[in-house]
Amino acid sequence: MNNLAYLPQRELVCDLCKKFYAKGWASGTGGGVSIRVDDSNYLIAPSGVQKEEIESKDLFVIELIDCGYKIIEKPENLKISACTDIFVNIYKKRKEVGAIIHSHSINSVLLTKIVNGDHVTISKYEMLKGLEGCNYFGSHTIPILNNVENECDLADSVAEVVEKYPLSHAVLVRDHGVYIWGRNWERAKVHAECYDYLFEAFIKEKQLMNIISLKN
Amino acid sequence: MNNLAYLPQRELVCDLCKKFYAKGWASGTGGGVSIRVDDSNYLIAPSGVQKEEIESKDLFVIELIDCGYKIIEKPENLKISACTDIFVNIYKKRKEVGAIIHSHSINSVLLTKIVNGDHVTISKYEMLKGLEGCNYFGSHTIPILNNVENECDLADSVAEVVEKYPLSHAVLVRDHGVYIWGRNWERAKVHAECYDYLFEAFIKEKQLMNIISLKN
Amino acid sequence: MNNLAYLPQRELVCDLCKKFYAKGWASGTGGGVSIRVDDSNYLIAPSGVQKEEIESKDLFVIELIDCGYKIIEKPENLKISACTDIFVNIYKKRKEVGAIIHSHSINSVLLTKIVNGDHVTISKYEMLKGLEGCNYFGSHTIPILNNVENECDLADSVAEVVEKYPLSHAVLVRDHGVYIWGRNWERAKVHAECYDYLFEAFIKEKQLMNIISLKN
Amino acid sequence: MNNLAYLPQRELVCDLCKKFYAKGWASGTGGGVSIRVDDSNYLIAPSGVQKEEIESKDLFVIELIDCGYKIIEKPENLKISACTDIFVNIYKKRKEVGAIIHSHSINSVLLTKIVNGDHVTISKYEMLKGLEGCNYFGSHTIPILNNVENECDLADSVAEVVEKYPLSHAVLVRDHGVYIWGRNWERAKVHAECYDYLFEAFIKEKQLMNIISLKN
Repeated sequence: MNNLAYLPQRELVCDLCKKFYAKGWASGTGGGVSIRVDDSNYLIAPSGVQKEEIESKDLFVIELIDCGYKIIEKPENLKISACTDIFVNIYKKRKEVGAIIHSHSINSVLLTKIVNGDHVTISKYEMLKGLEGCNYFGSHTIPILNNVENECDLADSVAEVVEKYPLSHAVLVRDHGVYIWGRNWERAKVHAECYDYLFEAFIKEKQLMNIISLKN
Repeated sequence: MNNLAYLPQRELVCDLCKKFYAKGWASGTGGGVSIRVDDSNYLIAPSGVQKEEIESKDLFVIELIDCGYKIIEKPENLKISACTDIFVNIYKKRKEVGAIIHSHSINSVLLTKIVNGDHVTISKYEMLKGLEGCNYFGSHTIPILNNVENECDLADSVAEVVEKYPLSHAVLVRDHGVYIWGRNWERAKVHAECYDYLFEAFIKEKQLMNIISLKN
Repeated sequence: MNNLAYLPQRELVCDLCKKFYAKGWASGTGGGVSIRVDDSNYLIAPSGVQKEEIESKDLFVIELIDCGYKIIEKPENLKISACTDIFVNIYKKRKEVGAIIHSHSINSVLLTKIVNGDHVTISKYEMLKGLEGCNYFGSHTIPILNNVENECDLADSVAEVVEKYPLSHAVLVRDHGVYIWGRNWERAKVHAECYDYLFEAFIKEKQLMNIISLKN
Repeated sequence: MNNLAYLPQRELVCDLCKKFYAKGWASGTGGGVSIRVDDSNYLIAPSGVQKEEIESKDLFVIELIDCGYKIIEKPENLKISACTDIFVNIYKKRKEVGAIIHSHSINSVLLTKIVNGDHVTISKYEMLKGLEGCNYFGSHTIPILNNVENECDLADSVAEVVEKYPLSHAVLVRDHGVYIWGRNWERAKVHAECYDYLFEAFIKEKQLMNIISLKN
């Protein structure tokens, strides 16, 4: 089936799924990837399948329309990702976004367990510089939404916080994971690696500092 | 030896063993895999050998019979898995099960060390949705058996708790590991990844929460 | 150079070095591997080189003799492993041993930091069954030696504890690592995986249990 | 493009970048690698790109000159590493250095979070012997600089501490990472592995010891 539209980009999505699975961001069918292929069309990985086994022919193509999106291409026997409404809202609110990654990384989930409230602020890590628009001395705030039973019910709140936190490239969802984006797939992947590093470091620093200060 | 019965399924079992070894679920000859190949026949990995080195010809074929099972094919110089009686009882109690994974994952063992009693309940993780029949807001309970000296002596208790906890796709064995199943190999692998993620998160959350609350 | 003696066993040693490096047991030129190739000859990996890069031609061949050993084959520009005297003493005290692995695993080192005294006893882990002669309900004791400046000065104390602890397949060296053996390379590798799993679980259990009991 | 100068060394730098990315030292475009190719010329990896994707043609060649360095070869559309001034100062202060690695390893960053002051001293680890000039019973001191907003502003302070700590093969930068060198690429890689092992062990030992002593 070499006549699939957007074949190189399809292969890229499959390759990214394999890499994110290997990092533990997409185990147990969790997580997802989407990339923009032209002005109004987007590739989206299917739902509920082993992400590391996805092939080019398994991807959905959607087109953004005023009242949401329509499915342009639907692979047989597959369901579109439960995150599609969320992806669509992020693409609509941030016209420059070219790719979105949804990760179930344990680091992202544990961070939302130990931070109360609707956001987390991270500062004092060189790795912040890997996030577009951030620097070392400033601080960086990422919104946290509470999880809901049906992922699609998060779409409106995601749209809201994406507006409310214009400097963030991510939305955390408590007990669930994180959505991370960038202006193209490279930048989305770099952001995802930086955020996961920062989440891991944040948790470990908190644990170490608490243990050491207990001792003193 | 291309005339082995069920060759593609044999290769699948070998491939799964390699993948589970890489995840740390089958180090030191630990762990095991079994899949159903037709109405009454099942493939089972051998005992006491390096799981990542198993080849197609090394697998046992068993047939379920009323009073237990009989060995249909026995590879030379190999012993059938010590878990066979357990696998057989799970297949008999859950007619829909198509594959079973036995893992020695350190996460599963540590969880049984810090949880007293005969079950553990996990809730408030999106990853629960990867388990068939589970959702985010509900809670999910997995039975825990105490370990015994000879693995085959666990078979009856496994049969009991499989009946007692109809919503669980797993049985934990204290100080030992976990048996996880699904209606086919894909679902068993997805369940195994979800459970291991949940066990790891459960332990880390407990550790973090205790440390933070000590400080306060 | 296809006329090297013991070529398949040489390739095996190189392959094991790559695998142990990947596990973190041989980073920074640390660790080592030796296997018996016939009644009196043994292959030994060289010292002070990147273990994951070793090739067949880089291995030493030694022969055990009454007063120690003699080098049968010495690769150009390479130094024999600093552990050679230790390997030789283990081979002499345990006639059945066919392979020895020296690991710098952080788990093994941290265990010797938190356990005082000259031995550690591990019990209540199914993984103990992977060690020849061990079972689940019994307990298993591994000697711990204090480290010395020159590795060769450990050889006599290793010989002593190998005699004193006939059921152990390993000697821990404080702040340093562990020597692990088996009757052939498969068994040595299985023992190494089981011990490393047990060391990791021992440390994590201790940490978790202390944190939880502080809270209560 | 097979007529690039220093092609084998270029491929080596690309290969090292892939390996360091896999270790988590160069995620999110972080980290960097430089090697000397002759008396006055050096290869340097570019800035702000995915390190694991770098190809031979993407590397800069610089020449050391009295007042700093000049760029001999500049790949199109790429920026030279932000660490270049630091690399240059290390090469100038340590004439014997043949390769430098910059790592964002979380271990290195967490260590600088829990150690106050301008240096850390590590002792009692066999792994110290992997560092040239170090031994087990002695102690080894590594300078720690505070991070600054622009990496190039670290260059002078790096030059100072490289002089002040002649036995160290590394400079830690708080909240940021570490620069590690050796007389050739093999030795720089070995040093990087040893330091990262020591940083990880240092943090874990501190955590374990604090928890255990709290209990007593």
